[in-house]
Amino acid sequence: MTVFDVAVWKDGKVRMLDQRLLPTEERYLEFTSAAGVAEAIRAMVVRGAPAIGCAAAFGVAVEAFRLADSGTPASWPEAMAEGMRLLRQARPTAVNLGWALDRLEPLLAGDPVDLPQRLLREAEAIRTEDIASCRAMGKAGAAILPAPPSGRPLTIMTHCNAGALATAGYGTALGVIRAARERFGEVRVFATETRPFWQGARLTAWELERDGFEVTLITDSMSGHAMSRGLIDAVVVGADRVAANGDAANKIGTYGHAVLARRHGIPFLVACPLSTIDFKTPTGLEIPIEERPADEVTHVRGLRIAAEGVKVFNPAFDVTPAELVTALVTERGVVHAPDAIRMRAALKA
Amino acid sequence: MTVFDVAVWKDGKVRMLDQRLLPTEERYLEFTSAAGVAEAIRAMVVRGAPAIGCAAAFGVAVEAFRLADSGTPASWPEAMAEGMRLLRQARPTAVNLGWALDRLEPLLAGDPVDLPQRLLREAEAIRTEDIASCRAMGKAGAAILPAPPSGRPLTIMTHCNAGALATAGYGTALGVIRAARERFGEVRVFATETRPFWQGARLTAWELERDGFEVTLITDSMSGHAMSRGLIDAVVVGADRVAANGDAANKIGTYGHAVLARRHGIPFLVACPLSTIDFKTPTGLEIPIEERPADEVTHVRGLRIAAEGVKVFNPAFDVTPAELVTALVTERGVVHAPDAIRMRAALKA
Repeated sequence: MTVFDVAVWKDGKVRMLDQRLLPTEERYLEFTSAAGVAEAIRAMVVRGAPAIGCAAAFGVAVEAFRLADSGTPASWPEAMAEGMRLLRQARPTAVNLGWALDRLEPLLAGDPVDLPQRLLREAEAIRTEDIASCRAMGKAGAAILPAPPSGRPLTIMTHCNAGALATAGYGTALGVIRAARERFGEVRVFATETRPFWQGARLTAWELERDGFEVTLITDSMSGHAMSRGLIDAVVVGADRVAANGDAANKIGTYGHAVLARRHGIPFLVACPLSTIDFKTPTGLEIPIEERPADEVTHVRGLRIAAEGVKVFNPAFDVTPAELVTALVTERGVVHAPDAIRMRAALKA
Repeated sequence: MTVFDVAVWKDGKVRMLDQRLLPTEERYLEFTSAAGVAEAIRAMVVRGAPAIGCAAAFGVAVEAFRLADSGTPASWPEAMAEGMRLLRQARPTAVNLGWALDRLEPLLAGDPVDLPQRLLREAEAIRTEDIASCRAMGKAGAAILPAPPSGRPLTIMTHCNAGALATAGYGTALGVIRAARERFGEVRVFATETRPFWQGARLTAWELERDGFEVTLITDSMSGHAMSRGLIDAVVVGADRVAANGDAANKIGTYGHAVLARRHGIPFLVACPLSTIDFKTPTGLEIPIEERPADEVTHVRGLRIAAEGVKVFNPAFDVTPAELVTALVTERGVVHAPDAIRMRAALKA
């Protein structure tokens, strides 16, 4: 597969694909300090919780190398405090950001010699583990996909971008699609454009095209028609947060696709790492749904589309009840027909 | 209500609101010949089958007045032939266009004295009848809407624009919403933006705002979430063609909203004039679905949004099976839970 430098270590610098310019331009940025990486995270050069976690970890390492250039600091925790703070505040709601920093922080108090190298090894481990986790998820998901229908390759619909670009490089939902191609030889993809932010049109279409998939773009409103015409064999999406009973919060529109998939007897898979499952939240009803600014809906790239004076309702996510989820796919395996008991039995450590 | 000069006769000219400029600009154009009106129809100054029918009828009248300026022609049918041809070819697929012209054409062979006045009276009759038909439809639809929930006004969701702007001035689906306000005092509207052509964001939001409604705009992907949160009390949409069994073809996305409405126990009404019902088409399966160009999906106002190389599937309509239609609303009354037998009994002359 095509590998994108979503957030990697290269020649002593943190290198990131600037996702804000996609799909128009493929530009890579390089950073040599925690402050630079923090600003890039804040400005959404990189997005997607696992990708942000990787970027932050490399940000810690590059900061240590920068400081070590003027000799080993008297106190690493003290010298690193400002950089850690900047990184931690870059996107306060991204759960993997804090998780990655929490994992690196204890190292600062250890042996001061070669600390930058040890931070870098840990950051590389975070990246490697994310890719391994996505590959395991992909394999588990691909194994339960239906066989291709006669006459054409298996065709999978996905919504938003739960891809290489949102992770360290393989993807959750798109990881399942990549693994499906390894299993079946060819797989085609229907990508919904994903209004109002166009992640499907901009990111999913771009990364899968680059990876040699045949991608068909549809508006979010076309999924039902496509299913009714027999064009879709399975739906695979990611998740932003999954409740203890298997209810899954994901990009707005996911719920509607799930209801339509059920009506047409099409398997509906949710792929997410264990870190996305929140056993402290009993059901989807308790998942708070972020509402975003009106101009995301009324304007496109600064151009006003909608009539003046109109109110806007702009929820960023919706909740798909577990009863509509054919299977939840994680790096620890699959939970068929998820509910609170099966979720706990299969996934709770 | 606010009256828009969608296509009217004013001071010896045909006056039309230029819908291509909405919602940014409200500009009216005036025409003094059949050629001018035909070009305006072709260029989509006016859209919506009933509105096009009205415009064409006034185009015939204004052409006759123009010709009569140089004295009564020796043969009206001959003098009018070129204008009639231009009008008929303006949008060959719009059923009401041919219907309006067929209704005026026999008059050309009658008494040549005062022919322009008689054509104008007939054109005015077409307009008046369309408004009366929409008002009857509105009243019938409003009568079967549920009562407002306690604590807030009745909130109706609609998709695309089946409004005053698509008809002679009152609307089919939006006619039901206008009549609902007459019945309940206040009604709020959720309008879906209606990708890829934005008829909801551009036209429905604009005409209902101008008419004093509180309109909330959502992307097409948000209807399920809005329903699941109890924000929608009824869905009312128009139709482009209804089969003999009640299956309804309408703007792409309608089917998904219907499936979601059923899941949430929300009434789903389809409002359309009898002329939209095609008793020669047994079911929705036989309704051909127009596929439109890729750039409607990949670009917005000439700006490329989607990744290069992507394929596009762009069906303009989908089919909502009759089983999901709570009631079909026409100017001759309502067909509850439509099927072939009930449709024929209630509506077939």
